[in-house]
Amino acid sequence: MKVTVSRRAHFNAAHRLYRKDWSETKNNAVFGKCNNPNYHGHNYELIASVTGNIDQETGYVMDMKVLKQIIKTEIEDAFDHKNLNLDVPEFKTLNPTAENIVVIIYNKIKAKLESHLDLEITLYETPRNFVTYSG
Amino acid sequence: MKVTVSRRAHFNAAHRLYRKDWSETKNNAVFGKCNNPNYHGHNYELIASVTGNIDQETGYVMDMKVLKQIIKTEIEDAFDHKNLNLDVPEFKTLNPTAENIVVIIYNKIKAKLESHLDLEITLYETPRNFVTYSG
Amino acid sequence: MKVTVSRRAHFNAAHRLYRKDWSETKNNAVFGKCNNPNYHGHNYELIASVTGNIDQETGYVMDMKVLKQIIKTEIEDAFDHKNLNLDVPEFKTLNPTAENIVVIIYNKIKAKLESHLDLEITLYETPRNFVTYSG
Amino acid sequence: MKVTVSRRAHFNAAHRLYRKDWSETKNNAVFGKCNNPNYHGHNYELIASVTGNIDQETGYVMDMKVLKQIIKTEIEDAFDHKNLNLDVPEFKTLNPTAENIVVIIYNKIKAKLESHLDLEITLYETPRNFVTYSG
Amino acid sequence: MKVTVSRRAHFNAAHRLYRKDWSETKNNAVFGKCNNPNYHGHNYELIASVTGNIDQETGYVMDMKVLKQIIKTEIEDAFDHKNLNLDVPEFKTLNPTAENIVVIIYNKIKAKLESHLDLEITLYETPRNFVTYSG
Amino acid sequence: MKVTVSRRAHFNAAHRLYRKDWSETKNNAVFGKCNNPNYHGHNYELIASVTGNIDQETGYVMDMKVLKQIIKTEIEDAFDHKNLNLDVPEFKTLNPTAENIVVIIYNKIKAKLESHLDLEITLYETPRNFVTYSG
Repeated sequence: MKVTVSRRAHFNAAHRLYRKDWSETKNNAVFGKCNNPNYHGHNYELIASVTGNIDQETGYVMDMKVLKQIIKTEIEDAFDHKNLNLDVPEFKTLNPTAENIVVIIYNKIKAKLESHLDLEITLYETPRNFVTYSG
Repeated sequence: MKVTVSRRAHFNAAHRLYRKDWSETKNNAVFGKCNNPNYHGHNYELIASVTGNIDQETGYVMDMKVLKQIIKTEIEDAFDHKNLNLDVPEFKTLNPTAENIVVIIYNKIKAKLESHLDLEITLYETPRNFVTYSG
Repeated sequence: MKVTVSRRAHFNAAHRLYRKDWSETKNNAVFGKCNNPNYHGHNYELIASVTGNIDQETGYVMDMKVLKQIIKTEIEDAFDHKNLNLDVPEFKTLNPTAENIVVIIYNKIKAKLESHLDLEITLYETPRNFVTYSG
Repeated sequence: MKVTVSRRAHFNAAHRLYRKDWSETKNNAVFGKCNNPNYHGHNYELIASVTGNIDQETGYVMDMKVLKQIIKTEIEDAFDHKNLNLDVPEFKTLNPTAENIVVIIYNKIKAKLESHLDLEITLYETPRNFVTYSG
Repeated sequence: MKVTVSRRAHFNAAHRLYRKDWSETKNNAVFGKCNNPNYHGHNYELIASVTGNIDQETGYVMDMKVLKQIIKTEIEDAFDHKNLNLDVPEFKTLNPTAENIVVIIYNKIKAKLESHLDLEITLYETPRNFVTYSG
Repeated sequence: MKVTVSRRAHFNAAHRLYRKDWSETKNNAVFGKCNNPNYHGHNYELIASVTGNIDQETGYVMDMKVLKQIIKTEIEDAFDHKNLNLDVPEFKTLNPTAENIVVIIYNKIKAKLESHLDLEITLYETPRNFVTYSG
């Protein structure tokens, strides 16, 4: 009996989409106003979905308080009220597109879960744009 | 042409997470404030998603009015404004975690659907915590 | 320049609507299934809206971190995962209708605000039913 | 590294569910008040989800500005503020149930995507009823 | 102690904005694509907010079950799955703009409330456009 | 017959809360992590609510297409994908707190409305924090 348990979280951050090895013209052509050199920002909303068997003793797939704490330590403390390009090591050389951010979040949370559990991350960059990654 | 049709519903209920065969200390360690002996409660929001082929005559996978009625009879009438632990037979000996509730809901609705139809249930315990089960 | 600043919070609780001095018949006639003697429950969503002049130094009406902390101490710690009838002193002799709860919440938060600030509380009992009180 | 990128859009339209080759009695029995000969209508909310590998150069699965433009040209310009039965060629002989609409939307958008990309469409007819199709 | 109690409801309808006494050119200039002669439609979401004193006996401003029934009889039964221009007498000679609809809804519900109660209606034509009227 | 018509819009921006004439210690004490020198950001959601009499000819308080265009020109084009501190002249010497931003937005839109119309602006900095100003 595989059940998926999901938990919502959020963080606010600034970012800029560009590649240092591209000309300004090419960056503007590909990334448009997301390439503002002074940055813009988002309220990122995050859903972490963990799939596994129900523990017959507790009735839990995993303790949601533990999942909440992993998200806090790994993601909120690291990303909230930060500039993703300047303050977060993972994006020093990686363009912080929603696609790249969701993969980083997946990797950070997956490393803290018991290995028999599957994970999917959905990341809302805005209420109208979102991405999903499950490894 | 398999299409999934989904219908939202809701019920309000009280519950308590604990095991009668555990000590109060162990119940508190595992279930924390969800083990309040006087109960707490939630507005449960439910999504029932039914997958099947489109009927070429009607253009329906199934009549949503029928699905709405099944949810009402099987779930809303049985769970709404109830104490899950005390008033609902399925939870007399089963801990009403979100995971266990979603499996019970799945089983009750699946039994009323034509057998060629697949079902997935998503149950929101709060807007921030939810579970999904598809058999 | 009066501006209103609003902060959302939430708590989950069980309750029952009834009057001890009424017959069961009268309680059922007035409160219907809300009079379940085993209780039911809700995810209460709360909006606290504080109105005052913008402080010219800080650009704040009040520090939202302070408002968030007042809501946590006065409301979330007192009401979350509780049975309003049994665990919360204010409702020992007061019927916990949404109307009575919103007045209690208003009184508790208003007492902690500087006296020049106005307050309005909106309390969602469900996404479809809510109440508002401003003193 | 397959990631899904999703974009929300919306259109408002009138429609009527019925078959010309059925009697009025049969249409009413199957489609109920959705068979109002004067039409009724909805705010359709649409989510287009595209799955593919992250382009290592751009960090994109596909440029969301391109996806947004495809949805605008193929769906919003064609369906918004229209009567689906009378104004949209695809529904001249096809009953505009949510199931049939989501298949048409899928086909129109899929035809404009690069062939290596997978697509899933979710269409909300109301906030309480929605359908999903992925080919 | 004046408290406002609010209840959400919804109906789906088709409509067209135009004046019979205007030329097609003028109707198009003023109402644009809302003047589609074949109609378009919306999921209208409605909030009825009733303000009055808390009844000291019941703890209610008014019984929300009564308010829910008034909305059902006066608004949902009359407007749901209808063409506002053709099926609803109030709009036979009144242009069904959101502003005119909200006034009609206010008048219909206000007539059924006890006279000491105040009323405000908010009507969402879409999640992005809404109107409010309080007499 | 005064009716309020409301329109939702949104923009994404980076900002930093601080005063150049304060020490870093004082800025941190007052503004906390909002004082990140590398900025953070938000998806700002905006509701512009205009109150006036219904025009008896059109049934409109004002043409929502006109209001939508005013919001686009005055707010979205000026603030979207910008760094409020660096890119927006109004905040060169004004701390971009939500309170100060909502007053600026009010002033910019009010100046473009006919003088007999009243305006209220609600600005969501996050889904949990928002501010309202009506002059």
